[in-house]
Amino acid sequence: MSQGQEPQLERLTFFSDAVFAIAITLLVIEIHVPHPDGHDDAAWLHALAELLPHFFGFVLSFVVVGAMWAAHHRVFGLLHRYDPALIWRNLALLMAVAFMPFSSALMSTHPAERIPEMFYALNLLVGGLLQYRLFRGALRAPYLRGDVTGAEVATIRRRSLALPMMSLLSFVLAIWIPGPSNLPLMLMPLVVLALARGIRRTGATPAT
Amino acid sequence: MSQGQEPQLERLTFFSDAVFAIAITLLVIEIHVPHPDGHDDAAWLHALAELLPHFFGFVLSFVVVGAMWAAHHRVFGLLHRYDPALIWRNLALLMAVAFMPFSSALMSTHPAERIPEMFYALNLLVGGLLQYRLFRGALRAPYLRGDVTGAEVATIRRRSLALPMMSLLSFVLAIWIPGPSNLPLMLMPLVVLALARGIRRTGATPAT
Amino acid sequence: MSQGQEPQLERLTFFSDAVFAIAITLLVIEIHVPHPDGHDDAAWLHALAELLPHFFGFVLSFVVVGAMWAAHHRVFGLLHRYDPALIWRNLALLMAVAFMPFSSALMSTHPAERIPEMFYALNLLVGGLLQYRLFRGALRAPYLRGDVTGAEVATIRRRSLALPMMSLLSFVLAIWIPGPSNLPLMLMPLVVLALARGIRRTGATPAT
Amino acid sequence: MSQGQEPQLERLTFFSDAVFAIAITLLVIEIHVPHPDGHDDAAWLHALAELLPHFFGFVLSFVVVGAMWAAHHRVFGLLHRYDPALIWRNLALLMAVAFMPFSSALMSTHPAERIPEMFYALNLLVGGLLQYRLFRGALRAPYLRGDVTGAEVATIRRRSLALPMMSLLSFVLAIWIPGPSNLPLMLMPLVVLALARGIRRTGATPAT
Repeated sequence: MSQGQEPQLERLTFFSDAVFAIAITLLVIEIHVPHPDGHDDAAWLHALAELLPHFFGFVLSFVVVGAMWAAHHRVFGLLHRYDPALIWRNLALLMAVAFMPFSSALMSTHPAERIPEMFYALNLLVGGLLQYRLFRGALRAPYLRGDVTGAEVATIRRRSLALPMMSLLSFVLAIWIPGPSNLPLMLMPLVVLALARGIRRTGATPAT
Repeated sequence: MSQGQEPQLERLTFFSDAVFAIAITLLVIEIHVPHPDGHDDAAWLHALAELLPHFFGFVLSFVVVGAMWAAHHRVFGLLHRYDPALIWRNLALLMAVAFMPFSSALMSTHPAERIPEMFYALNLLVGGLLQYRLFRGALRAPYLRGDVTGAEVATIRRRSLALPMMSLLSFVLAIWIPGPSNLPLMLMPLVVLALARGIRRTGATPAT
Repeated sequence: MSQGQEPQLERLTFFSDAVFAIAITLLVIEIHVPHPDGHDDAAWLHALAELLPHFFGFVLSFVVVGAMWAAHHRVFGLLHRYDPALIWRNLALLMAVAFMPFSSALMSTHPAERIPEMFYALNLLVGGLLQYRLFRGALRAPYLRGDVTGAEVATIRRRSLALPMMSLLSFVLAIWIPGPSNLPLMLMPLVVLALARGIRRTGATPAT
Repeated sequence: MSQGQEPQLERLTFFSDAVFAIAITLLVIEIHVPHPDGHDDAAWLHALAELLPHFFGFVLSFVVVGAMWAAHHRVFGLLHRYDPALIWRNLALLMAVAFMPFSSALMSTHPAERIPEMFYALNLLVGGLLQYRLFRGALRAPYLRGDVTGAEVATIRRRSLALPMMSLLSFVLAIWIPGPSNLPLMLMPLVVLALARGIRRTGATPAT
């Protein structure tokens, strides 16, 4: 049944891709068109300035969900089998991802309030933990392809700690300084990028 | 034309995956950002507590639609042919799935009222019956792959009775106890999971 | 470059599938959750009865767009090449499909008024003509696979006249009898089904 | 690991296709169903006439995003490798694409005002520059397939200047003549079409 697994695994990843793609694109629909009182440039610039937290929230959430997709893409490229347990761990992760448009809109609408900021970080923390659990379950026999080295797996597992750690930090910071509390999350993609570039440079995994 | 069937069947499943993925992700857009009167923690916790039925409805619908996708994924992995009759049975199922964001929002907005709860259970009952009809029509010659055993088919057909049975039970319960009437649906994924694990343990189908 | 064409053609069809899938699933988000004055069954049944045109519009549009997807699926399964001209004919068709959620909501919100009904039929008429143009352009050398018979092509071209004819009829009827004017569209899927079954029975093309 | 790259590259393109497809289909949901005061034809025609900027904005954005997808499709068909740097350049482009439903709605709702028109052109300018950066980075070793000629690459790079140039022109024009400022964007697809047809005619790349 090995020949039956590959296309089915492909379908599982495409379903996941679709959920990631829809969640990441739905982030924009919570930004509503403003109707400023005046029609001059000053009124418009003021109206757009009021939307800045929404623009910022869109970019932050897009980058974080994009990074989650890139990690998912990387891990599933290393697998050649799966089973229902993996499907459900994957669905649990997708649930946290599909919830992001709400959390992102909540945080963007109330950008300096404690509970919305904590709620947003909590969504990412849950997503990060579910991602770690999925990757931990998936990156081993019998799911893992035979040609993947232990070093590669160790690197990915280390990298997948970034999201839960940074969102926990963001959650704690939001208790005292809601708003700037997102700083750890903003730094996270840079960390991921740096890690990705480091890995590419060493040549262990040339791509993915 | 056998070589022409496989990619076309793949396209049919990807279209289905896309509809499942969009419906499951649209569940969140009916949850609206609250605007509490105060800005303190108490006002926010109160506002989020009022959203609890929406969060609950999101999780319940996500798990049920996710289970429907997992079943669809399992069944279509066993096919190697299809025809227009199968396409239309499939489209009928997808119609019930695409309707779920409305039913879920209706039930979440009015979590303790009889008709919305019954409406939600009815949507799932129709979806469950259409799924049973699709699987019954698909899991046989000439659609079924030659290497699929009769035992596998019997198991899947038995499993696909879970959704119509549980949603019928939920529909009837909603007449007297709307709200707790969702209990059978909450138990359903566990039943599916247990069945899936049972099947995996016996080794008949190692995955999916 | 023949080996480079197949995966690219596949990608073109998957992009089309995604647009069809999103448009067909977005049909539901224009149905808004009612908030009846009372909480008894009578108030709820009245509220749901008022939504009947929306439920009807959802089903009608789902079936019509589903039939358009099934035809697109059938035709693209017969191709093995494409070029930019085909891409743009395809994008023109997808534009009419992507516009359907608006037309469907307009017609469902004002189910007995002339202009909304004509607007809906016009959207389908334009979609039907763009579909006919795409199929006419695609079902010939150098796009068509070598093993497709002239009889198959003739059948598909005849079938693809159904949508423009029925929506033109619906458009004209809407001038005098808006509402019942949708009858030709309701009959169309049956016609398509009948044709599809007829083709299957004769055995010329065993499956889509 | 060359055999592992192809399906992973395919998944990257399908994820991109999904984001393009969702963004292009979400353009319609910002067009709201009108509720005219009267029910006669005159009231309806007036109501639909007021929606004309929305219809125009939908068509313009659909064609521009469609052209961006067609260019993305063309370029990724020439690759056989990728790496994290390409993934992030691609995600940056997708972010600009996913933002289009907001910019398009802003421009359509305020069709003759300076700042909304400039904002729309700016979104396309950023998207065009990110697209140029992605293509510049992708159309070279080690990503490029061995059978792609330098002439093909030069043509595509020249073509991908069209969007940033035309949107910059549109941005500048919007300062003095908001509204007609979209003219360069309307002409752009024709330019792209002309170029595509020119390429096909010379026979260098028969399709894509």
